[in-house]
Amino acid sequence: MRMNKRGVLIVFSGPSGSGKGTVLGEYFKSHPEAAFSVSATTRAPRPGEVDGVNYHFVTRERFEEMIRQGEVLEYTRYNGNYYGSPAGPIRKELEAGRDVVLEIEVDGAMQVREKFPEAVLIFVLPPSFGELERRLIGRGTETREQIEGRLSTARRELSLAPRYDYLLLNDKVEEAAARLGEIIRAAKCAPARNETLLQEFLAE
Amino acid sequence: MRMNKRGVLIVFSGPSGSGKGTVLGEYFKSHPEAAFSVSATTRAPRPGEVDGVNYHFVTRERFEEMIRQGEVLEYTRYNGNYYGSPAGPIRKELEAGRDVVLEIEVDGAMQVREKFPEAVLIFVLPPSFGELERRLIGRGTETREQIEGRLSTARRELSLAPRYDYLLLNDKVEEAAARLGEIIRAAKCAPARNETLLQEFLAE
Repeated sequence: MRMNKRGVLIVFSGPSGSGKGTVLGEYFKSHPEAAFSVSATTRAPRPGEVDGVNYHFVTRERFEEMIRQGEVLEYTRYNGNYYGSPAGPIRKELEAGRDVVLEIEVDGAMQVREKFPEAVLIFVLPPSFGELERRLIGRGTETREQIEGRLSTARRELSLAPRYDYLLLNDKVEEAAARLGEIIRAAKCAPARNETLLQEFLAE
Repeated sequence: MRMNKRGVLIVFSGPSGSGKGTVLGEYFKSHPEAAFSVSATTRAPRPGEVDGVNYHFVTRERFEEMIRQGEVLEYTRYNGNYYGSPAGPIRKELEAGRDVVLEIEVDGAMQVREKFPEAVLIFVLPPSFGELERRLIGRGTETREQIEGRLSTARRELSLAPRYDYLLLNDKVEEAAARLGEIIRAAKCAPARNETLLQEFLAE
Protein backbone atom coordinates (compact mmCIF):
# COMPACT_ATOMS: atom_id res chain seq x y z
CA MET A 1 0.00 0.00 0.00
CA ARG A 2 1.58 3.25 -1.06
CA MET A 3 0.47 6.80 -1.67
CA ASN A 4 -0.73 8.19 -5.00
CA LYS A 5 0.11 5.59 -7.60
CA ARG A 6 -1.53 7.90 -10.12
CA GLY A 7 0.46 10.78 -11.51
CA VAL A 8 -0.43 14.34 -10.58
CA LEU A 9 -1.54 16.97 -13.07
CA ILE A 10 0.50 20.12 -12.52
CA VAL A 11 -0.74 23.40 -13.95
CA PHE A 12 2.04 25.92 -14.25
CA SER A 13 1.27 29.59 -14.96
CA GLY A 14 2.96 32.93 -14.52
CA PRO A 15 3.36 36.28 -16.21
CA SER A 16 5.54 36.65 -19.26
CA GLY A 17 8.99 37.41 -17.82
CA SER A 18 8.44 35.43 -14.62
CA GLY A 19 10.90 32.85 -15.90
CA LYS A 20 8.46 29.96 -15.68
CA GLY A 21 9.92 28.22 -18.72
CA THR A 22 13.43 28.37 -17.25
CA VAL A 23 12.23 26.99 -13.90
CA LEU A 24 10.41 24.15 -15.67
CA GLY A 25 13.49 23.38 -17.78
CA GLU A 26 15.56 23.12 -14.60
CA TYR A 27 12.90 20.94 -12.97
CA PHE A 28 12.74 18.51 -15.89
CA LYS A 29 16.53 18.09 -15.79
CA SER A 30 16.19 16.33 -12.43
CA HIS A 31 12.75 14.82 -13.18
CA PRO A 32 13.00 13.27 -16.64
CA GLU A 33 10.17 10.90 -15.63
CA ALA A 34 7.64 13.73 -15.64
CA ALA A 35 5.70 14.44 -18.83
CA PHE A 36 5.16 17.80 -20.48
CA SER A 37 1.78 18.22 -22.15
CA VAL A 38 2.12 19.37 -25.75
CA SER A 39 -0.69 21.78 -26.71
CA ALA A 40 -2.80 21.50 -29.82
CA THR A 41 -3.26 24.58 -32.02
CA THR A 42 -4.87 25.63 -35.26
CA ARG A 43 -2.18 28.17 -36.05
CA ALA A 44 0.31 27.36 -38.81
CA PRO A 45 3.69 25.95 -37.81
CA ARG A 46 6.52 28.50 -37.77
CA PRO A 47 9.82 27.63 -39.41
CA GLY A 48 11.57 24.99 -37.31
CA GLU A 49 8.50 23.99 -35.32
CA VAL A 50 7.88 20.26 -35.26
CA ASP A 51 4.41 18.70 -35.11
CA GLY A 52 4.00 16.77 -31.86
CA VAL A 53 6.98 18.51 -30.26
CA ASN A 54 6.22 22.24 -30.18
CA TYR A 55 2.52 21.75 -30.82
CA HIS A 56 0.08 19.28 -32.24
CA PHE A 57 -0.90 21.18 -35.39
CA VAL A 58 -4.53 20.46 -36.26
CA THR A 59 -7.21 21.94 -38.51
CA ARG A 60 -9.94 24.20 -37.21
CA GLU A 61 -12.51 21.45 -37.95
CA ARG A 62 -10.54 18.90 -35.94
CA PHE A 63 -10.07 21.32 -33.02
CA GLU A 64 -13.78 22.19 -32.88
CA GLU A 65 -14.59 18.49 -32.94
CA MET A 66 -12.16 17.99 -30.03
CA ILE A 67 -14.01 20.70 -28.09
CA ARG A 68 -17.40 19.09 -28.81
CA GLN A 69 -16.16 15.64 -27.81
CA GLY A 70 -14.62 16.93 -24.56
CA GLU A 71 -11.18 16.00 -25.84
CA VAL A 72 -9.52 19.19 -24.59
CA LEU A 73 -8.98 19.87 -20.89
CA GLU A 74 -8.88 23.61 -21.53
CA TYR A 75 -8.67 25.86 -24.55
CA THR A 76 -8.56 29.47 -25.59
CA ARG A 77 -8.68 31.58 -28.76
CA TYR A 78 -5.89 34.01 -29.44
CA ASN A 79 -5.42 36.02 -32.65
CA GLY A 80 -8.10 33.93 -34.33
CA ASN A 81 -6.47 30.60 -33.52
CA TYR A 82 -7.35 27.89 -31.03
CA TYR A 83 -4.88 26.65 -28.44
CA GLY A 84 -5.68 23.84 -26.02
CA SER A 85 -4.53 20.81 -24.02
CA PRO A 86 -5.57 17.41 -25.44
CA ALA A 87 -7.17 15.41 -22.62
CA GLY A 88 -6.48 11.89 -23.89
CA PRO A 89 -2.67 11.81 -23.67
CA ILE A 90 -2.82 13.57 -20.28
CA ARG A 91 -5.18 11.00 -18.76
CA LYS A 92 -3.07 8.18 -20.18
CA GLU A 93 0.14 9.50 -18.61
CA LEU A 94 -1.56 10.08 -15.25
CA GLU A 95 -2.98 6.53 -15.26
CA ALA A 96 0.52 5.22 -15.98
CA GLY A 97 1.69 7.00 -12.83
CA ARG A 98 3.54 9.85 -14.52
CA ASP A 99 3.15 13.46 -13.44
CA VAL A 100 2.06 15.75 -16.27
CA VAL A 101 2.96 19.43 -16.47
CA LEU A 102 0.67 21.86 -18.29
CA GLU A 103 2.22 25.27 -18.93
CA ILE A 104 -0.86 27.39 -19.61
CA GLU A 105 -2.44 30.80 -19.08
CA VAL A 106 -4.61 31.73 -16.11
CA ASP A 107 -7.93 31.30 -17.95
CA GLY A 108 -6.97 27.80 -19.06
CA ALA A 109 -5.84 27.05 -15.51
CA MET A 110 -9.28 27.98 -14.19
CA GLN A 111 -10.89 25.63 -16.76
CA VAL A 112 -8.64 22.80 -15.57
CA ARG A 113 -9.54 23.56 -11.95
CA GLU A 114 -13.22 23.07 -12.89
CA LYS A 115 -12.80 19.88 -14.87
CA PHE A 116 -9.99 18.33 -12.90
CA PRO A 117 -10.23 19.43 -9.27
CA GLU A 118 -7.32 17.24 -8.21
CA ALA A 119 -4.88 19.23 -10.39
CA VAL A 120 -2.14 21.16 -8.56
CA LEU A 121 -2.11 24.81 -9.65
CA ILE A 122 1.20 26.63 -9.29
CA PHE A 123 1.70 30.31 -10.07
CA VAL A 124 5.22 31.61 -10.70
CA LEU A 125 6.08 35.06 -9.37
CA PRO A 126 9.08 37.11 -10.48
CA PRO A 127 11.08 38.59 -7.55
CA SER A 128 9.14 41.87 -7.91
CA PHE A 129 7.01 43.76 -10.37
CA GLY A 130 9.92 46.11 -11.07
CA GLU A 131 12.12 43.13 -11.87
CA LEU A 132 9.46 41.80 -14.24
CA GLU A 133 9.54 45.12 -16.09
CA ARG A 134 13.35 45.11 -16.24
CA ARG A 135 13.34 41.56 -17.63
CA LEU A 136 10.82 42.44 -20.33
CA ILE A 137 12.78 45.58 -21.30
CA GLY A 138 16.06 43.62 -21.12
CA ARG A 139 14.88 41.21 -23.78
CA GLY A 140 15.11 44.09 -26.22
CA THR A 141 12.66 42.41 -28.57
CA GLU A 142 9.56 44.45 -27.92
CA THR A 143 8.33 48.02 -28.19
CA ARG A 144 7.46 50.07 -25.11
CA GLU A 145 3.81 49.62 -26.03
CA GLN A 146 4.10 45.84 -26.21
CA ILE A 147 5.85 45.84 -22.84
CA GLU A 148 3.07 47.96 -21.32
CA GLY A 149 0.58 45.45 -22.70
CA ARG A 150 2.47 42.56 -21.11
CA LEU A 151 2.65 44.38 -17.76
CA SER A 152 -1.06 45.05 -17.84
CA THR A 153 -1.69 41.36 -18.59
CA ALA A 154 0.69 40.48 -15.75
CA ARG A 155 -1.39 42.57 -13.32
CA ARG A 156 -4.53 40.75 -14.32
CA GLU A 157 -2.78 37.38 -13.99
CA LEU A 158 -1.44 38.32 -10.55
CA SER A 159 -4.94 39.21 -9.42
CA LEU A 160 -5.92 35.58 -10.14
CA ALA A 161 -2.89 34.13 -8.33
CA PRO A 162 -4.89 33.65 -5.08
CA ARG A 163 -6.94 31.00 -6.86
CA TYR A 164 -3.86 28.85 -7.33
CA ASP A 165 -2.75 26.26 -4.79
CA TYR A 166 0.81 27.49 -4.55
CA LEU A 167 2.90 30.56 -5.36
CA LEU A 168 6.45 29.95 -6.50
CA LEU A 169 8.73 32.94 -6.11
CA ASN A 170 11.39 32.76 -8.80
CA ASP A 171 14.32 34.72 -7.38
CA LYS A 172 16.91 32.04 -8.11
CA VAL A 173 16.12 29.48 -10.78
CA GLU A 174 17.79 26.47 -9.10
CA GLU A 175 16.09 27.22 -5.78
CA ALA A 176 12.74 27.74 -7.47
CA ALA A 177 13.08 24.42 -9.32
CA ALA A 178 13.96 22.63 -6.08
CA ARG A 179 11.00 24.29 -4.36
CA LEU A 180 8.80 23.18 -7.25
CA GLY A 181 9.84 19.58 -6.58
CA GLU A 182 8.94 19.98 -2.91
CA ILE A 183 5.57 21.49 -3.76
CA ILE A 184 4.74 18.61 -6.09
CA ARG A 185 5.80 15.97 -3.57
CA ALA A 186 3.84 17.75 -0.83
CA ALA A 187 0.77 18.12 -3.05
CA LYS A 188 0.79 14.35 -3.51
CA CYS A 189 0.19 14.06 0.23
CA ALA A 190 -3.19 15.85 0.06
CA PRO A 191 -6.04 13.60 1.26
CA ALA A 192 -8.06 14.28 -1.90
CA ARG A 193 -5.23 12.68 -3.89
CA ASN A 194 -5.10 9.66 -1.57
CA GLU A 195 -8.70 8.57 -1.17
CA THR A 196 -7.91 5.00 -2.12
CA LEU A 197 -5.15 4.81 0.47
CA LEU A 198 -7.49 5.99 3.22
CA GLN A 199 -10.22 3.60 2.09
CA GLU A 200 -7.77 0.70 2.13
CA PHE A 201 -6.69 1.67 5.63
CA LEU A 202 -10.20 1.76 6.97
CA ALA A 203 -11.18 -1.43 5.15
CA GLU A 204 -8.38 -3.43 6.80
CA MET B 1 10.12 41.41 -0.42
CA ARG B 2 10.03 37.77 0.60
CA MET B 3 7.41 35.17 1.24
CA ASN B 4 5.80 34.48 4.62
CA LYS B 5 7.84 36.36 7.18
CA ARG B 6 5.39 35.05 9.75
CA GLY B 7 5.87 31.57 11.11
CA VAL B 8 3.42 28.84 10.23
CA LEU B 9 1.31 26.98 12.76
CA ILE B 10 1.65 23.25 12.18
CA VAL B 11 -0.91 20.89 13.66
CA PHE B 12 0.41 17.36 13.91
CA SER B 13 -1.93 14.47 14.66
CA GLY B 14 -1.99 10.74 14.20
CA PRO B 15 -3.11 7.57 15.92
CA SER B 16 -1.24 6.20 18.90
CA GLY B 17 1.41 3.94 17.36
CA SER B 18 1.73 5.99 14.16
CA GLY B 19 5.15 7.14 15.34
CA LYS B 20 4.30 10.84 15.15
CA GLY B 21 6.50 11.69 18.14
CA THR B 22 9.50 9.96 16.57
CA VAL B 23 8.96 11.75 13.24
CA LEU B 24 8.72 15.10 15.04
CA GLY B 25 11.85 14.36 17.05
CA GLU B 26 13.71 13.65 13.81
CA TYR B 27 12.32 16.83 12.23
CA PHE B 28 13.38 19.04 15.14
CA LYS B 29 16.94 17.66 14.92
CA SER B 30 17.33 19.42 11.58
CA HIS B 31 14.99 22.33 12.42
CA PRO B 32 16.04 23.57 15.86
CA GLU B 33 14.58 26.98 14.92
CA ALA B 34 11.02 25.62 15.04
CA ALA B 35 9.08 25.86 18.29
CA PHE B 36 7.12 23.10 19.98
CA SER B 37 3.97 24.26 21.74
CA VAL B 38 3.84 23.05 25.34
CA SER B 39 0.28 22.20 26.40
CA ALA B 40 -1.37 23.40 29.58
CA THR B 41 -3.13 20.85 31.81
CA THR B 42 -4.92 20.63 35.12
CA ARG B 43 -3.68 17.12 35.84
CA ALA B 44 -1.02 16.68 38.51
CA PRO B 45 2.61 16.37 37.38
CA ARG B 46 3.93 12.82 37.28
CA PRO B 47 7.33 12.04 38.83
CA GLY B 48 10.04 13.59 36.67
CA GLU B 49 7.71 15.93 34.74
CA VAL B 50 8.86 19.55 34.67
CA ASP B 51 6.50 22.52 34.61
CA GLY B 52 6.91 24.46 31.35
CA VAL B 53 8.71 21.56 29.66
CA ASN B 54 6.33 18.58 29.65
CA TYR B 55 3.27 20.71 30.41
CA HIS B 56 2.29 24.00 31.89
CA PHE B 57 0.65 22.75 35.07
CA VAL B 58 -2.22 25.04 36.07
CA THR B 59 -5.20 24.94 38.40
CA ARG B 60 -8.72 24.19 37.21
CA GLU B 61 -9.71 27.81 38.01
CA ARG B 62 -6.84 29.18 35.92
CA PHE B 63 -7.63 26.83 33.02
CA GLU B 64 -11.31 27.78 33.01
CA GLU B 65 -10.35 31.45 33.04
CA MET B 66 -8.05 30.81 30.04
CA ILE B 67 -11.00 29.24 28.20
CA ARG B 68 -13.27 32.23 29.02
CA GLN B 69 -10.60 34.73 27.95
CA GLY B 70 -9.93 32.91 24.67
CA GLU B 71 -6.40 32.16 25.82
CA VAL B 72 -6.45 28.57 24.55
CA LEU B 73 -6.39 27.75 20.85
CA GLU B 74 -8.00 24.36 21.50
CA TYR B 75 -8.75 22.24 24.54
CA THR B 76 -10.27 18.97 25.61
CA ARG B 77 -11.24 17.14 28.77
CA TYR B 78 -9.86 13.68 29.40
CA ASN B 79 -10.27 11.65 32.59
CA GLY B 80 -11.63 14.72 34.35
CA ASN B 81 -8.68 16.95 33.48
CA TYR B 82 -8.29 19.79 30.99
CA TYR B 83 -5.61 19.79 28.32
CA GLY B 84 -5.11 22.68 25.90
CA SER B 85 -2.78 24.85 23.84
CA PRO B 86 -2.08 28.34 25.27
CA ALA B 87 -2.67 30.87 22.49
CA GLY B 88 -0.39 33.68 23.72
CA PRO B 89 3.01 32.00 23.36
CA ILE B 90 1.98 30.53 19.99
CA ARG B 91 1.00 33.91 18.53
CA LYS B 92 4.23 35.44 19.85
CA GLU B 93 6.42 32.80 18.20
CA LEU B 94 4.52 33.09 14.90
CA GLU B 95 4.90 36.89 14.93
CA ALA B 96 8.63 36.44 15.52
CA GLY B 97 8.76 34.35 12.35
CA ARG B 98 9.14 30.96 14.01
CA ASP B 99 7.10 27.95 12.98
CA VAL B 100 5.17 26.39 15.85
CA VAL B 101 4.29 22.71 16.03
CA LEU B 102 1.19 21.57 17.95
CA GLU B 103 1.02 17.82 18.57
CA ILE B 104 -2.66 17.36 19.36
CA GLU B 105 -5.65 15.04 18.93
CA VAL B 106 -8.10 15.24 16.04
CA ASP B 107 -10.78 17.14 17.98
CA GLY B 108 -8.29 19.79 19.02
CA ALA B 109 -7.05 19.97 15.43
CA MET B 110 -10.58 20.75 14.23
CA GLN B 111 -10.84 23.54 16.81
CA VAL B 112 -7.57 25.03 15.54
CA ARG B 113 -8.85 24.81 11.95
CA GLU B 114 -11.87 26.93 13.04
CA LYS B 115 -9.96 29.57 14.98
CA PHE B 116 -6.80 29.66 12.90
CA PRO B 117 -7.65 28.82 9.27
CA GLU B 118 -4.08 29.43 8.09
CA ALA B 119 -2.77 26.51 10.21
CA VAL B 120 -1.29 23.56 8.32
CA LEU B 121 -2.90 20.31 9.42
CA ILE B 122 -0.80 17.17 8.97
CA PHE B 123 -2.02 13.66 9.77
CA VAL B 124 0.52 10.89 10.31
CA LEU B 125 -0.34 7.45 8.98
CA PRO B 126 1.42 4.23 10.01
CA PRO B 127 2.41 2.03 7.05
CA SER B 128 -0.83 0.02 7.50
CA PHE B 129 -3.50 -0.72 10.03
CA GLY B 130 -1.98 -4.15 10.65
CA GLU B 131 1.38 -2.52 11.34
CA LEU B 132 -0.30 -0.14 13.81
CA GLU B 133 -1.71 -3.13 15.66
CA ARG B 134 1.68 -4.89 15.66
CA ARG B 135 3.35 -1.75 17.07
CA LEU B 136 0.80 -1.40 19.86
CA ILE B 137 1.13 -5.10 20.77
CA GLY B 138 4.93 -4.87 20.49
CA ARG B 139 5.05 -2.21 23.21
CA GLY B 140 3.99 -4.93 25.63
CA THR B 141 2.66 -2.35 28.07
CA GLU B 142 -1.05 -2.71 27.49
CA THR B 143 -3.78 -5.30 27.81
CA ARG B 144 -5.57 -6.67 24.75
CA GLU B 145 -8.60 -4.60 25.81
CA GLN B 146 -6.55 -1.38 25.96
CA ILE B 147 -5.10 -2.15 22.53
CA GLU B 148 -8.60 -2.74 21.12
CA GLY B 149 -9.60 0.65 22.55
CA ARG B 150 -6.63 2.34 20.87
CA LEU B 151 -7.43 0.66 17.55
CA SER B 152 -11.02 1.79 17.74
CA THR B 153 -9.84 5.36 18.48
CA ALA B 154 -7.42 5.06 15.56
CA ARG B 155 -10.31 4.16 13.24
CA ARG B 156 -12.23 7.23 14.33
CA GLU B 157 -9.13 9.41 13.89
CA LEU B 158 -8.48 7.99 10.43
CA SER B 159 -12.04 8.81 9.42
CA LEU B 160 -11.20 12.48 10.13
CA ALA B 161 -7.91 12.39 8.22
CA PRO B 162 -9.57 13.75 5.02
CA ARG B 163 -10.11 17.05 6.85
CA TYR B 164 -6.37 17.52 7.20
CA ASP B 165 -4.27 19.34 4.60
CA TYR B 166 -1.68 16.61 4.26
CA LEU B 167 -1.22 12.93 5.02
CA LEU B 168 2.24 11.83 6.06
CA LEU B 169 2.87 8.12 5.62
CA ASN B 170 5.40 7.03 8.23
CA ASP B 171 7.04 3.99 6.72
CA LYS B 172 10.62 5.16 7.33
CA VAL B 173 11.19 7.78 10.02
CA GLU B 174 13.99 9.70 8.26
CA GLU B 175 12.03 9.83 5.01
CA ALA B 176 8.87 10.90 6.80
CA ALA B 177 10.75 13.69 8.61
CA ALA B 178 12.27 14.89 5.33
CA ARG B 179 8.82 14.80 3.71
CA LEU B 180 7.46 16.77 6.68
CA GLY B 181 10.02 19.49 5.94
CA GLU B 182 8.92 19.57 2.31
CA ILE B 183 5.26 19.78 3.28
CA ILE B 184 5.92 22.70 5.62
CA ARG B 185 8.00 24.58 3.04
CA ALA B 186 5.35 23.93 0.39
CA ALA B 187 2.53 24.98 2.70
CA LYS B 188 4.31 28.32 3.13
CA CYS B 189 3.77 28.87 -0.59
CA ALA B 190 -0.04 28.82 -0.31
CA PRO B 191 -1.56 32.15 -1.43
CA ALA B 192 -3.58 32.44 1.81
CA ARG B 193 -0.29 32.56 3.69
CA ASN B 194 1.15 35.19 1.34
CA GLU B 195 -1.55 37.81 1.07
CA THR B 196 0.84 40.62 1.96
CA LEU B 197 3.27 39.54 -0.73
CA LEU B 198 0.58 39.60 -3.39
CA GLN B 199 -0.71 42.97 -2.18
CA GLU B 200 2.81 44.42 -2.33
CA PHE B 201 3.19 43.07 -5.85
CA LEU B 202 -0.01 44.65 -7.07
CA ALA B 203 0.65 47.91 -5.24
CA GLU B 204 4.02 48.41 -7.00
